[in-house]
Parts: sequence; C-alpha cells; structure tokens
Amino acid sequence: MEADRRTRLAPDERRAQLVALGVAALVDRPLESLTLELLAERAGVSRGLLFYYFGSKQALHRVVVTTARDSMLRATEPVRALPPLDRLHDTLTRIVQFVRDHEGTFYSLVRGAASGDPEVREVVEQARALQAERVIAVFLEMGVPDSELLRIALRSWVAFAEEALVESALNTEMSTKDVVSFLERSVKAVAGSVHPA
Amino acid sequence: MEADRRTRLAPDERRAQLVALGVAALVDRPLESLTLELLAERAGVSRGLLFYYFGSKQALHRVVVTTARDSMLRATEPVRALPPLDRLHDTLTRIVQFVRDHEGTFYSLVRGAASGDPEVREVVEQARALQAERVIAVFLEMGVPDSELLRIALRSWVAFAEEALVESALNTEMSTKDVVSFLERSVKAVAGSVHPA
Repeated sequence: MEADRRTRLAPDERRAQLVALGVAALVDRPLESLTLELLAERAGVSRGLLFYYFGSKQALHRVVVTTARDSMLRATEPVRALPPLDRLHDTLTRIVQFVRDHEGTFYSLVRGAASGDPEVREVVEQARALQAERVIAVFLEMGVPDSELLRIALRSWVAFAEEALVESALNTEMSTKDVVSFLERSVKAVAGSVHPA
Repeated sequence: MEADRRTRLAPDERRAQLVALGVAALVDRPLESLTLELLAERAGVSRGLLFYYFGSKQALHRVVVTTARDSMLRATEPVRALPPLDRLHDTLTRIVQFVRDHEGTFYSLVRGAASGDPEVREVVEQARALQAERVIAVFLEMGVPDSELLRIALRSWVAFAEEALVESALNTEMSTKDVVSFLERSVKAVAGSVHPA
C-alpha cells in the first residue's frame, strides 16, 4: 500500500481541485444546476473522469456541500482562550471575512439548505447546529441563565445571521466592521429578548 | 360553457380535496417524498386520476406549496385599522395559531423552502417577502427611520421567526401567548439593534 501513495496523490489532488471548482461554480448558479457535465466542461476534462471521481450528480453535491461546510467551520473556529464577548467578536469577524472571500463556499451552504436531497440538507444542518452551540456557549459563559427558550432564540438567530450575511456582507457595500457590529448587536438583543424585561 | 358548471364543480372539489390531503401529508414526511402514488393511496383513488389532475409530481408540489402559502397569507392578513403594535400583536397571534392548527400547511412552506425546485422555492420566497413587508410597515408607521439595514434586519427576522415557530410553537408546550410575546420582544429587539445605542 505504501508504495502506491505517490501515484494515488495525483488523483486525490485532481479530485480536490474538481471539488473546489464545483464549490466556486455555485457563486452564479443554484446547486441543482451543478451537473457532472457542467463541471467537466469548466474543468476541461471528460464527463467520464467526473463520473469516475464522483459516480453521480447527487454524490457530487454531497461532497461539494460537505467540503464547503468543513472549510467554513475550520475558518470560523472560535479561539477558546478569548473571553466570551471577544471570542464572539473575533468569530463573527472571521465569518464575515470568510463569506466575502469565499462567496461560492457560503452560497453552497445556503443553497445546500435548499436542496431537495435530505442528506445534503443534513450536512448543512450540522453546521448550523454547531454554530448555534458556539453562540450559546458565549452567553452561558457570561452568566445568562440556560433555558429552552434561550437555546431556541439563539438557534433561530443563526438562521437570522445566515440571511443577514447574504444581504449585508454580499449585497451591500457595508464595511466588514459595520456588518460585524450589527450582528453583535442583534445577537445580544435576541438573547436579551428571551425573558420579559 | 355555463351549462357545464355543475358537472365541472365536482372535479374541482375533488381536486381541492386532493391538494388538501397533499398539504396534510407533509406533517410527517418531507416534500420530496410526496408522490402521485402516495397521494393516490392516501386518497383511495387511482394513480391515473392523480396524474389527470396534476400531471407530474413536480406540478403537485407546486400546487400544494402555493395552496399552503395562500392559506397562510390569508389567515394572517394584518387588520389595517389597528395601530401598528396592536396590529403586530394580532398578526403574530394569528400566525402562531395558524401554525398550531395547520402543522402540515406550515411544514409544507418550511419544506418548500428546502425544495430542489426553484419554482417551489420562489413560491415560498414570495410569502417571506410579503411577511417582511408587513413587519417593516409596522416599524415605519411607528416612526422608526427607514434604512437599508432596517429592511435587512427585519427580512432576516422573518427567517428567525420561521425557525422559532417550528421550535417553540410546534416542539414545546409553550402557551400561544408566551410564543407571541417572545416573537414580539425579539422583533422589537432586532429593530432596536439596527443602529448603535
């Protein structure tokens, strides 16, 4: 097996390049239009090769969305050593930056959520659940009492943030700093609205 | 043509019943699993009849989601005569009640948003846009200054509310009054977070 490693590396790299091209293609088209044919054409390779690597359009979608999710989660991993509010600020800054730098990756997640394939939706759902856990941790560490409604509010805020990121970070000229400040104010406001004043 | 009306009424009613059955079926299954065969079986009619009425699974999904959307929008139509905050309270109360009374209808909208069919997603998107306009109108009438960010915030709050409705109105024992109060507090908090304090 070891002797095969060098020869297997090239196909692995080729496959990774094709996946990256698939993710990037989602900047200007919905997930369902990403076919093996289209990707073969963009990559300048045969449809047969695409079929060899991915097997089906559905499998291609799953690997594209999973790759997008993992790269977003890695890029926005909270810095545990920071105090809660600084950690929130830092994480949000990296999310906004990531969304602006990797539009295709972010769209593949937004559009993965709108996929007809339950497995693709599940991949996206896991990312949302993890982002919600990260935000919930911030407020619990600050001493906000844990409750079912706090968790519902912050999970729902993740849906809010996804929408707000598309609209503000991608569709306006707002500075990254202003988008981050708005997201920070909104999540604090939502957490504060859990219990009657 | 007039002479045909009575004979045509029965098929129209039959078709409406089939659509209602399709909407109801979405309480316990995703949209993509709603096939002509399944609906034929539940309705105790032939697959041929379903095909005659709808033509394809995709066409069935479109009519089911459009019907769900229209019935939700009708049931939650704001009472224009009420002052803004009372109107908001009244509309939110009817939304929570509607979600609880018609789980299948609400799920068909949430699941329609997760459809692989862009036309189905567009049907749902129109409802969200209209709900956002209703909420924006409330805050503008109360004298909140109009801005791009206010509109982004309140459109994003509609995504928040959709998630919060599934989680709180359907998955908890919270009273309708408590769900409504939480939604009211959250939307005011989000509108208030648009500009730095």
